[in-house]
Amino acid sequence: MVQVGVIMGSISDWDTMIHACKILDDFGVLYEKDIISAHRTPDDLFTYAKTAADRGIKVIIAGAGGAAHLPGMVASKTMLPVIGVPIQSKALNGLDSLLSIVQMPAGVPVATVAIGRAGATNAGILAAQILATNDQVIAEKLTKYEQSLKGKVAEMRDQLANE
Amino acid sequence: MVQVGVIMGSISDWDTMIHACKILDDFGVLYEKDIISAHRTPDDLFTYAKTAADRGIKVIIAGAGGAAHLPGMVASKTMLPVIGVPIQSKALNGLDSLLSIVQMPAGVPVATVAIGRAGATNAGILAAQILATNDQVIAEKLTKYEQSLKGKVAEMRDQLANE
Amino acid sequence: MVQVGVIMGSISDWDTMIHACKILDDFGVLYEKDIISAHRTPDDLFTYAKTAADRGIKVIIAGAGGAAHLPGMVASKTMLPVIGVPIQSKALNGLDSLLSIVQMPAGVPVATVAIGRAGATNAGILAAQILATNDQVIAEKLTKYEQSLKGKVAEMRDQLANE
Amino acid sequence: MVQVGVIMGSISDWDTMIHACKILDDFGVLYEKDIISAHRTPDDLFTYAKTAADRGIKVIIAGAGGAAHLPGMVASKTMLPVIGVPIQSKALNGLDSLLSIVQMPAGVPVATVAIGRAGATNAGILAAQILATNDQVIAEKLTKYEQSLKGKVAEMRDQLANE
Amino acid sequence: MVQVGVIMGSISDWDTMIHACKILDDFGVLYEKDIISAHRTPDDLFTYAKTAADRGIKVIIAGAGGAAHLPGMVASKTMLPVIGVPIQSKALNGLDSLLSIVQMPAGVPVATVAIGRAGATNAGILAAQILATNDQVIAEKLTKYEQSLKGKVAEMRDQLANE
Amino acid sequence: MVQVGVIMGSISDWDTMIHACKILDDFGVLYEKDIISAHRTPDDLFTYAKTAADRGIKVIIAGAGGAAHLPGMVASKTMLPVIGVPIQSKALNGLDSLLSIVQMPAGVPVATVAIGRAGATNAGILAAQILATNDQVIAEKLTKYEQSLKGKVAEMRDQLANE
Amino acid sequence: MVQVGVIMGSISDWDTMIHACKILDDFGVLYEKDIISAHRTPDDLFTYAKTAADRGIKVIIAGAGGAAHLPGMVASKTMLPVIGVPIQSKALNGLDSLLSIVQMPAGVPVATVAIGRAGATNAGILAAQILATNDQVIAEKLTKYEQSLKGKVAEMRDQLANE
Amino acid sequence: MVQVGVIMGSISDWDTMIHACKILDDFGVLYEKDIISAHRTPDDLFTYAKTAADRGIKVIIAGAGGAAHLPGMVASKTMLPVIGVPIQSKALNGLDSLLSIVQMPAGVPVATVAIGRAGATNAGILAAQILATNDQVIAEKLTKYEQSLKGKVAEMRDQLANE
Repeated sequence: MVQVGVIMGSISDWDTMIHACKILDDFGVLYEKDIISAHRTPDDLFTYAKTAADRGIKVIIAGAGGAAHLPGMVASKTMLPVIGVPIQSKALNGLDSLLSIVQMPAGVPVATVAIGRAGATNAGILAAQILATNDQVIAEKLTKYEQSLKGKVAEMRDQLANE
Repeated sequence: MVQVGVIMGSISDWDTMIHACKILDDFGVLYEKDIISAHRTPDDLFTYAKTAADRGIKVIIAGAGGAAHLPGMVASKTMLPVIGVPIQSKALNGLDSLLSIVQMPAGVPVATVAIGRAGATNAGILAAQILATNDQVIAEKLTKYEQSLKGKVAEMRDQLANE
Repeated sequence: MVQVGVIMGSISDWDTMIHACKILDDFGVLYEKDIISAHRTPDDLFTYAKTAADRGIKVIIAGAGGAAHLPGMVASKTMLPVIGVPIQSKALNGLDSLLSIVQMPAGVPVATVAIGRAGATNAGILAAQILATNDQVIAEKLTKYEQSLKGKVAEMRDQLANE
Repeated sequence: MVQVGVIMGSISDWDTMIHACKILDDFGVLYEKDIISAHRTPDDLFTYAKTAADRGIKVIIAGAGGAAHLPGMVASKTMLPVIGVPIQSKALNGLDSLLSIVQMPAGVPVATVAIGRAGATNAGILAAQILATNDQVIAEKLTKYEQSLKGKVAEMRDQLANE
Repeated sequence: MVQVGVIMGSISDWDTMIHACKILDDFGVLYEKDIISAHRTPDDLFTYAKTAADRGIKVIIAGAGGAAHLPGMVASKTMLPVIGVPIQSKALNGLDSLLSIVQMPAGVPVATVAIGRAGATNAGILAAQILATNDQVIAEKLTKYEQSLKGKVAEMRDQLANE
Repeated sequence: MVQVGVIMGSISDWDTMIHACKILDDFGVLYEKDIISAHRTPDDLFTYAKTAADRGIKVIIAGAGGAAHLPGMVASKTMLPVIGVPIQSKALNGLDSLLSIVQMPAGVPVATVAIGRAGATNAGILAAQILATNDQVIAEKLTKYEQSLKGKVAEMRDQLANE
Repeated sequence: MVQVGVIMGSISDWDTMIHACKILDDFGVLYEKDIISAHRTPDDLFTYAKTAADRGIKVIIAGAGGAAHLPGMVASKTMLPVIGVPIQSKALNGLDSLLSIVQMPAGVPVATVAIGRAGATNAGILAAQILATNDQVIAEKLTKYEQSLKGKVAEMRDQLANE
Repeated sequence: MVQVGVIMGSISDWDTMIHACKILDDFGVLYEKDIISAHRTPDDLFTYAKTAADRGIKVIIAGAGGAAHLPGMVASKTMLPVIGVPIQSKALNGLDSLLSIVQMPAGVPVATVAIGRAGATNAGILAAQILATNDQVIAEKLTKYEQSLKGKVAEMRDQLANE
């Protein structure tokens, strides 16, 4: 069953958000992905957020750039955990995206991750961590993932030793 | 008839937004004022923005701080001109408010003014300027206001001459 | 009749400001475009701003970068609504342009939009919104434009579905 | 059973972090609170993070300021979801805390919330949202909380109407 | 004969700009001081700048805050050296003032000094240095001033020795 | 006779500083150019600054990047006017250079211009303006230069008219 | 024998720099303290830096604010390790001090610590760490200091437990 | 004997950190280099830091980017001097790395150098300076290095003279 919703404001965000989806694929977490624009399709945003829980969604990952309102507005319409990914913007490099997403007022949190690709990857992991609070299979995959990170460092150590 | 809607996300914004209302009072522009929170009352925000034009509203002034989504989300639901006032925030002094309001994506503008009280005053003037494009009475008041600014500078010159 | 004046400080700003003009073209709004430099041709700036209303101009769009004084100085010489477009600058990416335009003192507003191309596009839309407060034809075009934005999102959704 | 661990780097952070605990109290979520300094008691940090899951902890909330390493280092030693609260710092107002917490590399996410008190409140809510993905009682309390936010806006509207 | 013009945008800038005047007093340099607002009295600004050289003014010191256009616009209307003093602003602490003054385009320089009181003091000294390129009396006073700075450090050393 | 000294910290700054020299060439102002590093050749810096006035130098232009100490340290050793040009740095785009140059303490001014090429050009013009306070020939060239700026805008207007 | 030199640009920096001295006192490290201004007493700065090693100084701690040139210029005149403490400045809160100190060009390092009091304390500890690379007594005191930090955390834990 | 440990969080940091190693090679200082990730291999980090002194290491150089925790966490586990090199990050150009490294709390210093390559070079020099406080051979090499910097400036002066 689909447990995670991955949404973004524009197709141009896909280059970043694909990294969240890749992680979910790796962990065998089913997800749906869609484009929902806070500013151009606000009604769709409301419908999406309002119905997500009923459709079985447990975590929403929302990526947006610039005056990034998508994660916060989704969070205003659902009590599901919402993870916000600040997309790197053209002029201000994502500092605008970051502040627009993270500086939410008391009452409506958005779980914000790093700007850009690393943030998208971490959004996928964080979604898995949330699901793993009640899913032993994902929890074990996270433990293996953690091990694989150590493996990658080991490889890089070998590489550096040869420099 | 009420022509301007002045909204803000919290009663704590009133200290700032009152300066927009004072200008409208000075110009004899009728307005309504209300608290609408993008994050806590998103449905009210949508209803407000969607019905504003039909109620005769011609310009909306929206003040918000932090991850300030109110102006942009109102703009997503109406084609009326929306003026955004960045409220000075506690930690980041309104830089977060400013970027959250001004960095809107192509298609959905927010007419952004300065952070804080000066911005709120200017939001009132800008609303009057917009109405004045088709209202000779307001246009004349604006000309008088412009003159009064010169008068204030003249007073300050006298004051400085005595230093 | 020409209703909008689009001005910029340098021919190098045209790459950005063309996007304001494209929107005005799309909406069938007549406009004039010109280069006026606040710092190199200040007298022309004053003449332009002072005579704009008499020539029938209802809204002025001014783009400038760095220590961007053009929008604010135009606003000091006219009571027409002035829209400021911060051009992305070389060293500071337009943060200087943005602050120079938006942080106007009480009494003289500039309606500021986003840095760069998105901002220029939005300046065109905002000008149309202002005209539409008293022009049913433009108002209808804005409504269609709003619909077209939704259409573009629909296209992007299809595109994402195929990824 | 204790489900949330609330940790902070110094007693001076308590003024902020108390707002996370108040929310957890309101929601009837049991939590433990402690002071663990990434830089002064790194071994305790590791022990805490490593043993948290076994002690039944499902979510960790970590507050820190300046070069804020506590949330990220806890995240490096557990696969539980870690929520980071940037404490407002003296010189840089929490911008350093925010960037030190949110800009984590791919592989080790920290769910970052706003700087200061609003962020701490939201950390409590986010923890509840995560628990609610598998706890109907908390889910219902969240729904009531959401309603209460609307109630507070209604009160503020009355207050504004009397201004 | 009056050789330096000290202007500022508002009487509230006088607290800062007085420090430029004190230096000029100390050096026996005659100056005029006035309030000229780029945005509220643009015509006065133009008249002032255009006539300054003919009145014998050799250097202009202009202080302004926020979207600080006064120094740059004066510079656009005179070929006299213009010294810009960024006034510390409320929300952004003078970073907006600084960028608005210093980031001038090629062709129209403003000699920018530090934000606030230290900058105003230095504006007075810089004006004296410019005059001293052709005035031996002022040059000697500058040399004495330089000595007095060393004297002040000597005093502070004594003070520290007693701590 | 050589009247202006143009110095920079590294040969890599020449790409920027050449624009100061070009202006001086255009104005027929004789200048010397040299590389003096505040950090690598501090004694040369002191000798240069201390002897500049005696060699007939009237204005010093100093370009530097990063922790840019050259202009300020030259200013500490001479009472000649010192113009500082912030070189655009790699990581922070010259914001570090700008703040290191402009934020001088009371007593020791540096006349700071814009970051990069525009700033270097303006440093040349500012030096000419300072010399022109007592040199009618340069003053006339400045007036012609001012006219030429207007000519360039006129050309750009023609160019835009053809777009 | 005096092993550490603690210098600062102004008596107003003493409130911050006293915290470096307190640490040195605690560790029984002998030090000298003095006021040396890079901009007002540059010759003293050179003499100080050049003679420090011969006087037995092994580490120099230099505090400065704004366009903070003291640490970097000392580093240009000695090969001793120089520790720079960015003093919190009035307008920009020490961001200018930090960048002016840390962004040194290749060849001349300054070991930079945090802005303000915490940085000054750490400058004292860092100096002790450097001395301890060849001084067993100081090394043991550092180990005890490290223990005392843990003790302080233990006290704070008790305090929190009582909240 | 190996006296310096050079560590970094990822193989991608090697392009920067190689410049620290080159300096150590030039000075004949023996060093070990390794990849240790604060977030992916925290146990290795602790082991490394805890055992470094016993293995004869006297100074540790740690490079990291983004939420850069490596230098600070190493410093938390050793009383050896730790030099932190902020790696230039993708979105925020190393400002995040710098603040995450330099803004350490009182008690645990990191000697921070400039962002990127210049900083890495300076980390190598600073390590040599620390060793030189008790090693005459290295001290003499540092003096020669200082001379070589002057030689490079001399070469650049010749190059500029030919422009």
